[in-house]
Amino acid sequence: MKSSSRVSPLLYADSERDANQLYFTGISVPDPFLAFGVGRKKFGVFNALEFSRAKKESALDEVLSFEEWRARAEKRFRHVPVGLAEIVATLARHYGLKRFAVPDDFPAKLGFELLELGLAVGFADGSFFLQRELKGPAELAAIREGNRCSTLGFAATERILRAAKIKRGRLLYEGRELTSERIKFAIEVACLEAGAVSTGTIVAGGDQGCDPHCRGSGPIRPNETLIVDIFPRVTATGYFGDMTRTYLKGRASEEQQRLVATVHAAQKLGLKTVRAGIDARKVHRAVQAFFKEQGYETTSDANGSRGFFHGTGHGLGLAIHEAPRMSTVDIRLKQGHVVTVEPGLYYPGLGACRIEDVVAVTATGCEMLSSHPYRWEIA
Amino acid sequence: MKSSSRVSPLLYADSERDANQLYFTGISVPDPFLAFGVGRKKFGVFNALEFSRAKKESALDEVLSFEEWRARAEKRFRHVPVGLAEIVATLARHYGLKRFAVPDDFPAKLGFELLELGLAVGFADGSFFLQRELKGPAELAAIREGNRCSTLGFAATERILRAAKIKRGRLLYEGRELTSERIKFAIEVACLEAGAVSTGTIVAGGDQGCDPHCRGSGPIRPNETLIVDIFPRVTATGYFGDMTRTYLKGRASEEQQRLVATVHAAQKLGLKTVRAGIDARKVHRAVQAFFKEQGYETTSDANGSRGFFHGTGHGLGLAIHEAPRMSTVDIRLKQGHVVTVEPGLYYPGLGACRIEDVVAVTATGCEMLSSHPYRWEIA
Repeated sequence: MKSSSRVSPLLYADSERDANQLYFTGISVPDPFLAFGVGRKKFGVFNALEFSRAKKESALDEVLSFEEWRARAEKRFRHVPVGLAEIVATLARHYGLKRFAVPDDFPAKLGFELLELGLAVGFADGSFFLQRELKGPAELAAIREGNRCSTLGFAATERILRAAKIKRGRLLYEGRELTSERIKFAIEVACLEAGAVSTGTIVAGGDQGCDPHCRGSGPIRPNETLIVDIFPRVTATGYFGDMTRTYLKGRASEEQQRLVATVHAAQKLGLKTVRAGIDARKVHRAVQAFFKEQGYETTSDANGSRGFFHGTGHGLGLAIHEAPRMSTVDIRLKQGHVVTVEPGLYYPGLGACRIEDVVAVTATGCEMLSSHPYRWEIA
Repeated sequence: MKSSSRVSPLLYADSERDANQLYFTGISVPDPFLAFGVGRKKFGVFNALEFSRAKKESALDEVLSFEEWRARAEKRFRHVPVGLAEIVATLARHYGLKRFAVPDDFPAKLGFELLELGLAVGFADGSFFLQRELKGPAELAAIREGNRCSTLGFAATERILRAAKIKRGRLLYEGRELTSERIKFAIEVACLEAGAVSTGTIVAGGDQGCDPHCRGSGPIRPNETLIVDIFPRVTATGYFGDMTRTYLKGRASEEQQRLVATVHAAQKLGLKTVRAGIDARKVHRAVQAFFKEQGYETTSDANGSRGFFHGTGHGLGLAIHEAPRMSTVDIRLKQGHVVTVEPGLYYPGLGACRIEDVVAVTATGCEMLSSHPYRWEIA
């Protein structure tokens, strides 16, 4: 075969969990498999179990047989047990590949073995597939669809909160005490019905919400803030939605009202600050400064943090958290980047609020990829 | 701190997707984080976002602050940009750790950087946590619970197939043509209701079922085999169930009946062959030989394979596919191993059948961890 002096991408991962592998191959496979590039052509190596499906469902130019290439490697490496590295080396020789680029999270053992076999293995600076950061129209539509599924979850949440009755300091719904689990079930069924899977859904009331990733459990109490964070993955495309709304069933105190209004204002500020060319840290710092101006201090001690102690946003796509992060790292926002904007404030005793939408970065600002009302007090 | 000459486990992964990280830390976290062992003590390093939750929810002995250790690393490595490797090196010096054992799929870039910083990094032979292969009573119960969720999915499937009417060669259910999607929705809702998430559920009729991992889509036809493979993950524990049944709505042909009876007999043979001390290949070979004896040949060509072309089973636990595999690899089965037994036959034109249960390996044989009837023809 012709020799190529270019660096070839090489992946070994399953594509259900690894977004680079799914992006490259276009097929969801539950077990790790090899994929690589030769010039502009994309190759994947599948065992008999996946081979025929990969031919039908993948976006690869060539689907190779794992068993065939293992047999070839066994011929070439007669005196050693043949593993993945020997198979890669055999493929590399056949296709004239000498230098591989691998993702930072490429499996270390295979990486070390490839070096020992004399192959060059390097890492990309920044994202492995730069193009994966910059979303095209179909990807924007897929993310919008993910967010649409999130909004179905909010609608289900609001129906339940409206129907729930406050009795002696408890919330009753359908004759039982209303729990986080009950609302999560309604959200997740709504997502399933729309063709998406919502796992890890957060419905966290009161102090539970003060741990930003606490999923929430047990009874929901009246007059307490309730963080609802829904990030469903659309089954047909693999893209995620990611939105958060904060609710309160009953009557909010003045302090709670000011908390929610401040987070909402911070989110508007964040959305206004996002545009192509800006350093993502600036968005984050603007939100941090605003909270401080408004008197919401961020502090931490041996038990944890209070205030605003996570990034203002993160990239969203085939992974729920991907580049670019909008936090303390120097990253220039580009047109086509898709990011969440999700400031939050967390004060045990008072409660927690996070409001999250998704935008595509444009030359002059950003375009909303999510839409749902911000009404939060439900009487 | 005291020096330890022992090798310390080191992990850097998220614990939603990485089973070793979940096993070690006992907390589900969506972003990668560091965890390591010092003697018998388990340490994890969490950023402010997860720190307080990790203190409450994790099974770690010590929860360290990422920000604090980054600051310490920045003090020590004044003249270079501080990344993960420098943080690990700072931790290693503090805790007297010199040699790390990492999983095969440890991120390669971090692995290379640790070597450059003079730390020793090695891989385990076989499973990273041997103990993860050998399930204790609580783990067996968790897997049984996963399988119970699978059976709720089968019950939902059977209700729909029983209620469906055959009209002019089509299946009608609730006034519409019955589809794979409709049944998957019912299965996944049943799992959600029971506290488990079923993703990738397979409901594949006719020739679709001949690709063992084809999820199935579109109309289900009468008188065709229908593979239903349900592998839910129980949210509370992270453990999976994994069961498959094959159905047929209408009337099976003699050929189809023989196909299903043969797979069922092969599964019984597989179950009978499993016991502690046996080479897992023997189980697989027994099933292969039985199919051949019965006249079911396995062949392959440029388009794929026909017959029986996957392993007889795989380990099951916090990962859906884990050690030990029962296929062509030399692995000795041990007491406490949990494996699926799932022979299948796939012949485009005729149809496909797979029957899968889960067992725990015992000294004298195996103990069923799944239970559901094998009735498959639904008139």
